[in-house]
Amino acid sequence: MSGGVQGYDPRTGEPVGEAVPETSDVVVDELARAGAAAFPAWSALPAAERASVLDAVADALDASSDALVSLADAETALGVPRLTTELKRTTNQLRLFGEVLREGSYVEATLDSANPDIVPPRPVLRRMLRPLGTVGVFAASNFPFAFSVAGGDTASALASGCPVIVKAHPSHPGTSRETARIVASVVPAGVFGIVHGQEAGVALVKHPAIKAVGFTGSTGGGRALYDLANARPDPIPFYGELGSVNPTVVLPDAAAARPEGFAAEFVGSLTLGVGQFCTNPGLLFAPTSLVPALADAVAAAAGGPMLNERMRDSYRSGTDDLAASGLADLVAEGTAPTEGWSVEPRLFHVPVAAFAENLEKLTEEHFGPAAVVVTYTDPAELEPVLSRLPGTLTGTVHAAESEHEHAGRVAEALRPVVGRLIFNGWPTGVAVAWGMHHGGPWPSTTNPLHTSVGATSIRRWVAPVTYQSWPDALLPAELREGNPLGIPRRVDGVLGVH
Amino acid sequence: MSGGVQGYDPRTGEPVGEAVPETSDVVVDELARAGAAAFPAWSALPAAERASVLDAVADALDASSDALVSLADAETALGVPRLTTELKRTTNQLRLFGEVLREGSYVEATLDSANPDIVPPRPVLRRMLRPLGTVGVFAASNFPFAFSVAGGDTASALASGCPVIVKAHPSHPGTSRETARIVASVVPAGVFGIVHGQEAGVALVKHPAIKAVGFTGSTGGGRALYDLANARPDPIPFYGELGSVNPTVVLPDAAAARPEGFAAEFVGSLTLGVGQFCTNPGLLFAPTSLVPALADAVAAAAGGPMLNERMRDSYRSGTDDLAASGLADLVAEGTAPTEGWSVEPRLFHVPVAAFAENLEKLTEEHFGPAAVVVTYTDPAELEPVLSRLPGTLTGTVHAAESEHEHAGRVAEALRPVVGRLIFNGWPTGVAVAWGMHHGGPWPSTTNPLHTSVGATSIRRWVAPVTYQSWPDALLPAELREGNPLGIPRRVDGVLGVH
Repeated sequence: MSGGVQGYDPRTGEPVGEAVPETSDVVVDELARAGAAAFPAWSALPAAERASVLDAVADALDASSDALVSLADAETALGVPRLTTELKRTTNQLRLFGEVLREGSYVEATLDSANPDIVPPRPVLRRMLRPLGTVGVFAASNFPFAFSVAGGDTASALASGCPVIVKAHPSHPGTSRETARIVASVVPAGVFGIVHGQEAGVALVKHPAIKAVGFTGSTGGGRALYDLANARPDPIPFYGELGSVNPTVVLPDAAAARPEGFAAEFVGSLTLGVGQFCTNPGLLFAPTSLVPALADAVAAAAGGPMLNERMRDSYRSGTDDLAASGLADLVAEGTAPTEGWSVEPRLFHVPVAAFAENLEKLTEEHFGPAAVVVTYTDPAELEPVLSRLPGTLTGTVHAAESEHEHAGRVAEALRPVVGRLIFNGWPTGVAVAWGMHHGGPWPSTTNPLHTSVGATSIRRWVAPVTYQSWPDALLPAELREGNPLGIPRRVDGVLGVH
Repeated sequence: MSGGVQGYDPRTGEPVGEAVPETSDVVVDELARAGAAAFPAWSALPAAERASVLDAVADALDASSDALVSLADAETALGVPRLTTELKRTTNQLRLFGEVLREGSYVEATLDSANPDIVPPRPVLRRMLRPLGTVGVFAASNFPFAFSVAGGDTASALASGCPVIVKAHPSHPGTSRETARIVASVVPAGVFGIVHGQEAGVALVKHPAIKAVGFTGSTGGGRALYDLANARPDPIPFYGELGSVNPTVVLPDAAAARPEGFAAEFVGSLTLGVGQFCTNPGLLFAPTSLVPALADAVAAAAGGPMLNERMRDSYRSGTDDLAASGLADLVAEGTAPTEGWSVEPRLFHVPVAAFAENLEKLTEEHFGPAAVVVTYTDPAELEPVLSRLPGTLTGTVHAAESEHEHAGRVAEALRPVVGRLIFNGWPTGVAVAWGMHHGGPWPSTTNPLHTSVGATSIRRWVAPVTYQSWPDALLPAELREGNPLGIPRRVDGVLGVH
């Protein structure tokens, strides 16, 4: 029998607090049934009232900020400043979904009048998006707030009208339990639950009352759960954000303009949070002349403790294997504290021709502060290689004023494999906004149509229903004559507030 | 070695025309590569120009209507009037997507201004939907035009900017080949291809250049291909429309008002096209008093030839097994011609309590003109049963003026398991419109978020990309300052033509 899920201090490797008991299958079943029982009332609540509940969750979390941040810092070693900001980001995210609900267009209300004269004839149609049912959310290791218990998946699913059951990440069980306690104290009974332990996660994905799953984590773990969701007698949507190498291309003039400045910014993005970001820039395409500056910057950079022992071991063995493979040269290594689960930043180098020959191996993600710099002499060598990259959350281009046209061609080569294209910036730092897309083709996510950040992430949890020839009094308010909620709607094909 | 794909006349069981050769894996590969090569130019074509190409395809098909309908009637026995209407529906569908492209909001252009003061800070973001790449489309047996070579999946994917390769249905190989010839004569080279034979279909789903698949057909066949798409090293979206029982509930007053008229309409919907519709009303919940009228109407109804021998055999054996199982009583059987692949309409009866006990078995779809009538004495018995039904494309309620409130409760019970709710009508006949949703939870489709009919079916083939801090001149026209295309966009959260 397991002793439960134990949190550890990555700075020392010592236990933090008491172990949180693993959730039994019986309790998983109870929570899933409670979600199903709570679904009709939660989904029928007017959107503006659900928005108020989300605001209240945000307020409650903000009110406990000091305690939550302190708990999370002990379990993750991510540091108080970063965690304070991350919690604020998390509560701002909850409030953004409140705005989305009040604005109302997320339901895509669509009204078609009848037309008996076309082929086929059209009856009166009223379409809108409605929530799927209870959602399972797998929390991430690397964001104990923003992609965890009350993070984006939970916020968007609750906003949509779906109850949520979170599978806590074992790297921060205490933080997860405390966050869950706060969320559960605000939302109606049954609308929110939390489970701990790997078996409970499996039971959640297989439970008939779970109608969709969100996941943020490794490609291996995500694929296993994705396969499980698809193997159900009734497969359910599984939205996984998995691995991403986040290519960055620096064109010659941009690199020549300020090699040291560029290298410093690159290494800043690479080592932020000990490289534990899904948008970590792990693959850099640069002129050969830039390598010395990059190597110097990495050598001067400090690493730090990773979130858990397994991730530290995986980073070490993955980058050791790469160095031993001879496929790329280890050209620089930074420093790290000797205690706890610390790792050093590492930089590898390979010329683009050799990269093209071993592309699959050299685009494996090494979660942590490691990057491969792929050097070119002529940037025309890049485009055929870029279009062969595996799916990735972001692609970045650095270009001088003189190189804009070339940057456009690079972007077109990258576009089919990326979710977000960044110009003269860095992929770390994901804004929470209407226009954000945090997704991309496999393996960066399991479904290229969806985002786990931003206003449109709510769409993962809703499906259309069309009411045909339905009496107005029986329709949801969003679809009634006269637009009582005053929301944007499409009426006979035309968008507007009507 | 196979002799190719042979069409047959369902009225006689005799061959029609010559067999169409099965497509080799080499040719599948060539077509997929040609699609990938054509993708950049086709996807970069301004939407209004793609709209003109769709219009030209529609015009070319309309110009060949007589020949196509005659070919299809010989291979399907669906009759000239129905097939003439179906081709018109198909070309109208192509033209609807032209309208969707010109209106422009389908790309969901979203513009966010920068805000450095929020947490996390927001850079300038520009988001829109862009096409996924080459799409595989599996044509249906029962709609040789509207869900086949130039049907909804093809039209929506071409509209989105994706090249399309169709796997023809073996029930109408000649019609498929001729339709494909016409489509290919209009669209740019590489943008459209067709393959024949089961192995070619498998090769298509597994091909690395195929980025998504659409399918209309049986639950068994669809599940096999869905599993294949998910088992790829890089899984791709698979949109299958599979089986659907389409429950219809008639409340007591509605049934009592005009039993014979209701029964006649029900049987008309049940036997339309020999019951070969995905929206065929295969499950009726009715007061016990309605059974005699229903049985009389079915007994008086004529069947006809099904599309192929396998479907005929499957209908016969499935309904024979049901009759032999003792789970429901065979209460009426209609007539059918003795030649070819004809079948008789069949009506089964079971009281609601017995239905609830054997719900899984009694909700198996028997594709063809068969229905199970589930009788109740008190309509309050229905709601717990309705919410347990398998996912289905449609749910219908018949209610008298006095029963509207009750109809609302029935609809709420049905809503989580259906895609379209119909009031006092019939599920057959699917309008092609902005507000149509032709989808539903598993097993009616593989993904409850999507429709295979209507304006929003285009969304299956597009994924978001966000441009961050991107120079205006390098952006797609949809996202540029000043809105040069004049399309609806979301600017800082507000929808409008701006």
